[in-house]
Amino acid sequence: MVDTPRSPLAPARFPTLPPVAGVRLGSMAAGIRYRGRTDLMMAAFERGTTVAGVLTQNRMPGAPVDWCRRQLAHGRARALVVKSGNANVFTGRAGVAAVEATAAATADLIGCKKGDVLIASTGVIGEPLPVERVTRILPKLYGRLTDKAWRKAADAILTTDTFAKGATRTAEIDGKTVTINGIAKGSGMIAPDMATMLAFFFTDAKLPTAVLRDLLKPANERSFNSITVDGDTSTSDTVLLFATGKGPRHGKVETAGDPRLKAFRAALLDCMTDLAQQIVRDGEGAGKFVSITVTGAASTAAARRIGLTVANSPLVKTAIAGADANWGRIVMAVGKAGERADRDRLAIRIGGHEVTRDGLAVPGYDEAPVVRHMQGREIEIAVDVGVAGGAATIWTCDLTHGYIDINADYRS
Amino acid sequence: MVDTPRSPLAPARFPTLPPVAGVRLGSMAAGIRYRGRTDLMMAAFERGTTVAGVLTQNRMPGAPVDWCRRQLAHGRARALVVKSGNANVFTGRAGVAAVEATAAATADLIGCKKGDVLIASTGVIGEPLPVERVTRILPKLYGRLTDKAWRKAADAILTTDTFAKGATRTAEIDGKTVTINGIAKGSGMIAPDMATMLAFFFTDAKLPTAVLRDLLKPANERSFNSITVDGDTSTSDTVLLFATGKGPRHGKVETAGDPRLKAFRAALLDCMTDLAQQIVRDGEGAGKFVSITVTGAASTAAARRIGLTVANSPLVKTAIAGADANWGRIVMAVGKAGERADRDRLAIRIGGHEVTRDGLAVPGYDEAPVVRHMQGREIEIAVDVGVAGGAATIWTCDLTHGYIDINADYRS
Repeated sequence: MVDTPRSPLAPARFPTLPPVAGVRLGSMAAGIRYRGRTDLMMAAFERGTTVAGVLTQNRMPGAPVDWCRRQLAHGRARALVVKSGNANVFTGRAGVAAVEATAAATADLIGCKKGDVLIASTGVIGEPLPVERVTRILPKLYGRLTDKAWRKAADAILTTDTFAKGATRTAEIDGKTVTINGIAKGSGMIAPDMATMLAFFFTDAKLPTAVLRDLLKPANERSFNSITVDGDTSTSDTVLLFATGKGPRHGKVETAGDPRLKAFRAALLDCMTDLAQQIVRDGEGAGKFVSITVTGAASTAAARRIGLTVANSPLVKTAIAGADANWGRIVMAVGKAGERADRDRLAIRIGGHEVTRDGLAVPGYDEAPVVRHMQGREIEIAVDVGVAGGAATIWTCDLTHGYIDINADYRS
Repeated sequence: MVDTPRSPLAPARFPTLPPVAGVRLGSMAAGIRYRGRTDLMMAAFERGTTVAGVLTQNRMPGAPVDWCRRQLAHGRARALVVKSGNANVFTGRAGVAAVEATAAATADLIGCKKGDVLIASTGVIGEPLPVERVTRILPKLYGRLTDKAWRKAADAILTTDTFAKGATRTAEIDGKTVTINGIAKGSGMIAPDMATMLAFFFTDAKLPTAVLRDLLKPANERSFNSITVDGDTSTSDTVLLFATGKGPRHGKVETAGDPRLKAFRAALLDCMTDLAQQIVRDGEGAGKFVSITVTGAASTAAARRIGLTVANSPLVKTAIAGADANWGRIVMAVGKAGERADRDRLAIRIGGHEVTRDGLAVPGYDEAPVVRHMQGREIEIAVDVGVAGGAATIWTCDLTHGYIDINADYRS
């Protein structure tokens, strides 16, 4: 975590995360990039733990992403090891060897297969990872794992973040209450010298790998895939969901569509959305949290693309930074998305105030209340493109001098 | 033209544009948005003039773009009228009426059909255009047209630009020398309160509409479609090429592939590239001019997409602004483009210095000469993605505090 001031959009405090049966975790300072900084996090899972994940679509993935993709195929997990300060991306054969060495050292400690160790890294791209600093300290870290170190684990995975990110939910399955804990890091998709998006979820529910996968994908689409800071996709983005099955015993679940999972699905989405929004709230230089809701699109996918195009438009983002009710830029961005949109039915609302209707500013449009809304910290934009029923919501932040400071003037 | 300082990347002076036989032009202050600012430009063409054009792909085009699309179908032109200060975009039926009134008033003066008048507008989006200010002054402007007023015409179409943009070339067709003049406005694709990309080319060669179209499209792809400032596509982008056929008489040309057009094709591309690069050099807040050459891609289109993804990455652009030799961001952007790229063969050069080879930093990589190059005004990035023979060059500028100043802090 760098010494930039805490984001003005940060939540008041880190929530209290309860233990999740079957999970022990902890963190230490391995000196991967900086001395004395907590940069190594480990979680150990009891036998029988399943895992599902989604990984970056970037065509230049790091060695840890390649490793996770391979292990997610079998869907079993006994440990998770996360390093911050070095992304181990674009590091060639040495990068692959670093991942293998980490997995081997961890498997030795736990007494499991190498392939049951999931690995993630975040930080600088293109520098060799000093893996011996990690393997040297792992036995000591393993000896200290507890079921309570959630905040310490959340701290260990941060890089340019200005606050630690955690969330917790419970849900009933079959009348039994299970827990979902999540931790994340990231200032958006931002992948500068030091950053990437990582999120890890842990539940004590008993869910087969196939069910986990089917639960994770749509929830990820509506949470982490619905945020953007600057549209730059990291080479390390990783979301993993672990299920230990060590919580209160509930009936056997065999499909994600099982009606008994209704509350769990909702709680998982809620927990993931919470952390996704926390990442936006820690977007580099962010001064405002922006929700963009698109309705009336040709499909959900079309609504998402339009929303993301508005959210990624530098002109929309700078207008929001300047509290400038410049809705012409929203029109431009909707048109640029390339999706079907009816210019002559386009309706825009900002902060609930109607701005345009039927392809024109509303008669007697009064900008004053719109500007007042835009001077706040939480901005709401709603766009109806008048074509069909597709809808989606995207979250982003504004583009400010702070972003330029961090990424142009600051040299790590 | 706003009162921001002249771009540090501006050319030393506006070139001397010679007359183009068959073209008379001029400009005046109509008071469209600001009093006393030259904001109306008119060109009149002799009978027989042909025209081809390319127009914005934005789905929210302005009324003038819709009008041009219709008239370009027949490809004849007797006049061009350009207004700055108001884009006449998202203005509903009133916007259509403003275009019709302008065309009718111009056609009356010239004694031609309304459909032979091409119209473009640039400026604020969503405000009604006070068209009577234009139609009132048109007769006076028409009376003053000359064959020399190129600089005045170039001035009249500017908005947030910091310098007027013109270029001229000659080429032989059949041993006869013809002229190509071009004027343009724009600070990139930037479409804030007041901006858009317009470019107009005029030649005295005698070329049928179909030939003009076939000449314009590929040249546009390699010039104006190869630049970006912030990836935001204007609702008014318009490039028009007029041919009067009133220059030295050359043999009849019936196809764009005619070998006698070889020099003309090259001169047109050169003239268009010159103006396209001038637009980048006037990019909002631009401090550096950046050339990105992509080779080894699956196709030309793939190379273009990779180049544009690198050029539009806020992280690459801010690294350039900060003279930060952060090549990991280039790797990230190449991977994010979604095109085929071989991570383990990726080769990057900056300012001619080899940075990566075979998916790794080069052995003994010395950052010092790369940083020295990046401290200059002209930055060269070359990326070989190691897949096939597709190649393209894209031009852009850096992303600086100046951009935020203009678009967030400045309220027009």
